[in-house]
Amino acid sequence: MSKNLVGAAMFAQSGGPTAVINASAYGVLNTALEAAEITNVYGAANGIVGILGDKIYDIGAEDAAELALLMNTPSSELGSCRYKLKNAADDDTDYKKLLEVFRRLDVRYFFYNGGNDSMDTCNKISAYMQSVGYECRVMGIPKTIDNDLCGTDHSPGFGSAAKYIATSVAEIYKDNNVYNTGSVTVVETMGRHAGWLAGAAALAGVAGCAPDFVYLPEVAFDMEKFVADVKSVYDATGKCLVAVSEGIAYADGSFVSEAKASATDGFNHAQLGGLAAILAEVVKTRLGAKVRGIELSLLQRCGAHLASKTDLDEAFGVGEFAVKRAIAGETDKMVVINRLDGAEYRAELALQPLSMAANSEKKVPREWVNAAGNGVTQEFFDYALPLIAGEPERVFEHGLPRFARLRKVLV
Amino acid sequence: MSKNLVGAAMFAQSGGPTAVINASAYGVLNTALEAAEITNVYGAANGIVGILGDKIYDIGAEDAAELALLMNTPSSELGSCRYKLKNAADDDTDYKKLLEVFRRLDVRYFFYNGGNDSMDTCNKISAYMQSVGYECRVMGIPKTIDNDLCGTDHSPGFGSAAKYIATSVAEIYKDNNVYNTGSVTVVETMGRHAGWLAGAAALAGVAGCAPDFVYLPEVAFDMEKFVADVKSVYDATGKCLVAVSEGIAYADGSFVSEAKASATDGFNHAQLGGLAAILAEVVKTRLGAKVRGIELSLLQRCGAHLASKTDLDEAFGVGEFAVKRAIAGETDKMVVINRLDGAEYRAELALQPLSMAANSEKKVPREWVNAAGNGVTQEFFDYALPLIAGEPERVFEHGLPRFARLRKVLV
Repeated sequence: MSKNLVGAAMFAQSGGPTAVINASAYGVLNTALEAAEITNVYGAANGIVGILGDKIYDIGAEDAAELALLMNTPSSELGSCRYKLKNAADDDTDYKKLLEVFRRLDVRYFFYNGGNDSMDTCNKISAYMQSVGYECRVMGIPKTIDNDLCGTDHSPGFGSAAKYIATSVAEIYKDNNVYNTGSVTVVETMGRHAGWLAGAAALAGVAGCAPDFVYLPEVAFDMEKFVADVKSVYDATGKCLVAVSEGIAYADGSFVSEAKASATDGFNHAQLGGLAAILAEVVKTRLGAKVRGIELSLLQRCGAHLASKTDLDEAFGVGEFAVKRAIAGETDKMVVINRLDGAEYRAELALQPLSMAANSEKKVPREWVNAAGNGVTQEFFDYALPLIAGEPERVFEHGLPRFARLRKVLV
Repeated sequence: MSKNLVGAAMFAQSGGPTAVINASAYGVLNTALEAAEITNVYGAANGIVGILGDKIYDIGAEDAAELALLMNTPSSELGSCRYKLKNAADDDTDYKKLLEVFRRLDVRYFFYNGGNDSMDTCNKISAYMQSVGYECRVMGIPKTIDNDLCGTDHSPGFGSAAKYIATSVAEIYKDNNVYNTGSVTVVETMGRHAGWLAGAAALAGVAGCAPDFVYLPEVAFDMEKFVADVKSVYDATGKCLVAVSEGIAYADGSFVSEAKASATDGFNHAQLGGLAAILAEVVKTRLGAKVRGIELSLLQRCGAHLASKTDLDEAFGVGEFAVKRAIAGETDKMVVINRLDGAEYRAELALQPLSMAANSEKKVPREWVNAAGNGVTQEFFDYALPLIAGEPERVFEHGLPRFARLRKVLV
């Protein structure tokens, strides 16, 4: 491997968006634009699909101030995809196309920003490029609000989603306590298989607005126990605030959100509306309480106005680090965040082989969920609170967030 | 009426909370605490109900710094109620109790912060106090996210709710455009009878993120036209973003959210989930598109982290003004906001008789909705944009909003 590799850089975004994924984009793009070794900087539209479909933007044509506003812009500004590459041994059509584009544009650096699947894609591309003798350094840049990537203490995107959830739950708590009449509120967070986001709801407790119960997918859900939990608090106080992960499932593995209608448990799932609406209906039927179900929906992953400064800075940092380390000779790596020991939160960036991250999910340790399975422990708070810390400067114009307006000039 | 009236002041909050109603509370309480004519400052728990039930806080016992944090605290910190006073001629039990409390605490100033019903309550109390010869100056302070109070250009609370909605719609727009696959999103706002909040979704257009269609309750809803609207944009672009008021109704006056199941129009309303879920299902059934329904729910009225500075300042201002004018001799009035002529937004506070506001609703003028009934005109933008302007300093601690922690010492 030559240490000094000169050529173009290609960047693409993949998977579900986050509030700060564009900060990682800016970390990559701005660092690449400034690097002597990088001749041109390209951004693919809709991830790998843009490369395969020749929809590639010339980032050098962008206005620097607009590019910097990527720090203020949620979602994936270049567009995303959920495209899964076949194994090259089975079908190398896509790989040949990628190679053709890389050769044509002299792409020697490839940066892919995404979750588990994206790291797998990186891995496959790198292996193919090596197999045909085309030198290209490939780096994966982590992101996911779900925080389920292995090998990294946490993933960029999680902290901001957690801050959005905790802040919203704190505000909902205030609203839920306004009237001198009974009320129960059920807040649903994302997180299909891991409870990091549901757990984040508990952080509202730091603002004096703790939800009474939090249910994570790491613990089998028991509807009777849930009803008894809510009843105990509601009977005592006339109020109850609950947070649930969309991914909670019964002991048999079936998702509560997809359970079949049942005459005995007093609820009928054959309906629209998500899990929050289902659980609200159960509580209403069983307790006779006034209940409201609230699904935080897309806002928890696109609420950039409430980004965590820690998360935003780290999201930029992992992008910048990927470029610098690739230029220094690294390849086939994913950037990870290592938390350092000590009372105060500090982290450093490092690299791990792409193959380590691909296709495994990091869940909330069972011991970070309380024994009753309806809340999180101090360990969870210690882990998550530093990640929601800090409020970055947000750019507003006419009372609204000022998002980057890229020219998106096609190559 | 004596100009110089010395005695205690009573303050209470009523109706649905807003992101800035506590700023009006602070405007009243802080101004009253500083006024030489006011001997004690009291706050009733849960509005008029707290006075009737002798649950009254001594505001003078509060820490000044915590009280100031009311500017940073959503919802109604003293609690609210939806209690309707009977006419004194029919049953004066409540009025006698109020008089007893006012006499005991020497309450000579009464400030009530709420919407239409609260102004009616103020009016009744003032008339009763006058009829029994008890001198007490009564002032109504407007608030409502619905913006449907008559006699005032707008109501405190609306600007912040509008900013929350417009910002969230802009962020959702970004998310809705991430993938290279078709998607339709339907966002539901509050506003049962007036379309001010739904119209606010259109403001996202200023950030380059305009919803394709906005439906207000001021125009009769036509499901076939709605489906045709969405289809036209979806067929052309593969995307469509729609905002609807919860209060949209068919020409016969029936709410779309409560319509009966119908075999012919391809949707079944006998279900949980709100209007957004219903319309999402219609679009899914009729267009075969991937659709997501998002109900902004409570967050649009309690999202203080995204308060409008204009709204926050005005909310404080109406409270302060009510106290100053009452001390100057005014009574039986509601504070209103008058917009001044000129290219730049300016407003001044004024008073109008309480009786003028009570029990009438201000709707969006039909001419501010476009001819097709699926969007708003420039007049709406000119009206609403100044009200979402400005971002106040928000106080955070440990990454979360720092809400006021009042001692709430009972009298």
